[in-house]
Amino acid sequence: MPKVLITTVPFGDKNDYPIELLEKAGIEYLINPIGRKLSEDELAEMVQDFDAIIAGTEPITDKVMQRGTNLKLISRVGIGLDSVDLLSAEKRGIIVSYTPDAPAPAVAEITVGIALSLIRNVHVSNYQMHKGNWNRYFGKRISEITIGIIGYGRIGSGFLERLVGFSPFKVLVNDIKTIDLSNFPFASKATKEEIYKNCDLISIHVPLTSSTKNMIKYETLKFMKSDACVINTSRGGIINEADLYKVLKEGHLFGAAIDVFENEPYNGKLKELENCLLTSHMGSMSIDCRTSMEIEATKEVVRFFSKEPLVSIVPDEEYQVQREKI
Amino acid sequence: MPKVLITTVPFGDKNDYPIELLEKAGIEYLINPIGRKLSEDELAEMVQDFDAIIAGTEPITDKVMQRGTNLKLISRVGIGLDSVDLLSAEKRGIIVSYTPDAPAPAVAEITVGIALSLIRNVHVSNYQMHKGNWNRYFGKRISEITIGIIGYGRIGSGFLERLVGFSPFKVLVNDIKTIDLSNFPFASKATKEEIYKNCDLISIHVPLTSSTKNMIKYETLKFMKSDACVINTSRGGIINEADLYKVLKEGHLFGAAIDVFENEPYNGKLKELENCLLTSHMGSMSIDCRTSMEIEATKEVVRFFSKEPLVSIVPDEEYQVQREKI
Repeated sequence: MPKVLITTVPFGDKNDYPIELLEKAGIEYLINPIGRKLSEDELAEMVQDFDAIIAGTEPITDKVMQRGTNLKLISRVGIGLDSVDLLSAEKRGIIVSYTPDAPAPAVAEITVGIALSLIRNVHVSNYQMHKGNWNRYFGKRISEITIGIIGYGRIGSGFLERLVGFSPFKVLVNDIKTIDLSNFPFASKATKEEIYKNCDLISIHVPLTSSTKNMIKYETLKFMKSDACVINTSRGGIINEADLYKVLKEGHLFGAAIDVFENEPYNGKLKELENCLLTSHMGSMSIDCRTSMEIEATKEVVRFFSKEPLVSIVPDEEYQVQREKI
Repeated sequence: MPKVLITTVPFGDKNDYPIELLEKAGIEYLINPIGRKLSEDELAEMVQDFDAIIAGTEPITDKVMQRGTNLKLISRVGIGLDSVDLLSAEKRGIIVSYTPDAPAPAVAEITVGIALSLIRNVHVSNYQMHKGNWNRYFGKRISEITIGIIGYGRIGSGFLERLVGFSPFKVLVNDIKTIDLSNFPFASKATKEEIYKNCDLISIHVPLTSSTKNMIKYETLKFMKSDACVINTSRGGIINEADLYKVLKEGHLFGAAIDVFENEPYNGKLKELENCLLTSHMGSMSIDCRTSMEIEATKEVVRFFSKEPLVSIVPDEEYQVQREKI
């Protein structure tokens, strides 16, 4: 009987269909008993007997795979692969699959919500009101600002699509690939530098790779307009957290919104800053998207042990990204 | 030299063009020295020598007008007229003008932001993260819920328009007038009761009148789905605050967002509740909308004292609403 370790939590919480799928297929499973994101050591300790992992964003390193001598499949609940050492998996013949489409609508949608909170100071007012302080904060509207989108994949494009009803004034978009913006007359391609320099609101939608790690650091933030807002709902580490703290402390930037952190759970210094909107990696946490991510990742596991072809194997370009890192 | 009392604060803060207009026209002015919304007594005390008021939402009652023996014009910065005793003004020959169009885009836009925060628990996570607590909250997306809009005027319709990019599943709209929803295939007309019963998110966009005062009370809130969200960015008093507190305390409703209160500045019991998103009457507080509201209201004053025709006199239907109250 194959054994699956489910490291991502919560799992099967709002909809127990993934659990049902495993049970029907006669697959034994263990849901992460620690109840939060595992460290490399915790995972290495835990992985030993398992044939597959239904994985969150915990580090699945060479060390982990070395300990997981039975490991044949890593099925990621989500799109990011920065946490998985793909080259080590490849070397050991461990297959890696993921769910690249499922989280995108939820992340794109929360990003619009966060953006609107940020530019209107909703989060600051809510925080102050709960302390008993009435201050009427000024803000800006989408139709009077220039918005920058860095990374125009599933999520970045979904973010742009959702802005249409707000009559955006100007949106600058950057991607390393060729992109088609012809449906959006208010949007145009731009370099990252043009975005940093000209935008009032900048939202990051790139994967974490060796070239995006610390992409936005002290100098980048200082290069932005003094009343700009910056949002990261992609991966921790792309905006350097210490640098962001320093820049906000200096009074530069109108505000920032961070959903993803270098070390999660996050409990760092940004929480001292009222104009930094903080959420706990909730981009994909809409019931529908989370459920379909869990179902898709579980179905891959069931397919694998039923010897059916997998449908969402990680493509070679993702391996290429990690090869370039070396 | 005519004298104008400016009661609404802040005023001329982000753009001093309204002040410039008054000075150029040789109009003497005083900006509310108390710096917050005035009570009836404070205003009655202050109004005596003035020929006009550039007014916020403070109570301009019969008593106030009785003391304002020179008063000839009330120019409201905003759209709501619940604070002005129109019949008393009429009786005394005091003209009332307002700025019905200017605030709408800002209010519609913040309402979308608040709605997205509410259904994804962004405000709760931000509050918790700033206290050092990491909890990943589940939420819902616009495309999986039924949304109710009560009041389809400038703001209610602006709210609906801004939802288009989110592929709404179903929107139910109620208005006392005949409305045209043909541009929105996902939207249909409904009674208030149908909205209370079936919607996951209900947003209020009606004026405060004798028939909307306490429109949503304990029974109404309990009639809503146990995981519904309710938003009021229109006027305080339409949702009964004590009843909302009681219902949320009982664990009914997923959350609420309140921007407007019966008594402002608000410092009441709703602040005890984490799932109640509170903002300080900030609907119209985008720099562009607030500026055009102030400019429009000031221009009416300048026109009046230059003996030019006014452009935004309050129409008779607003007087009719107050006549029906008696």
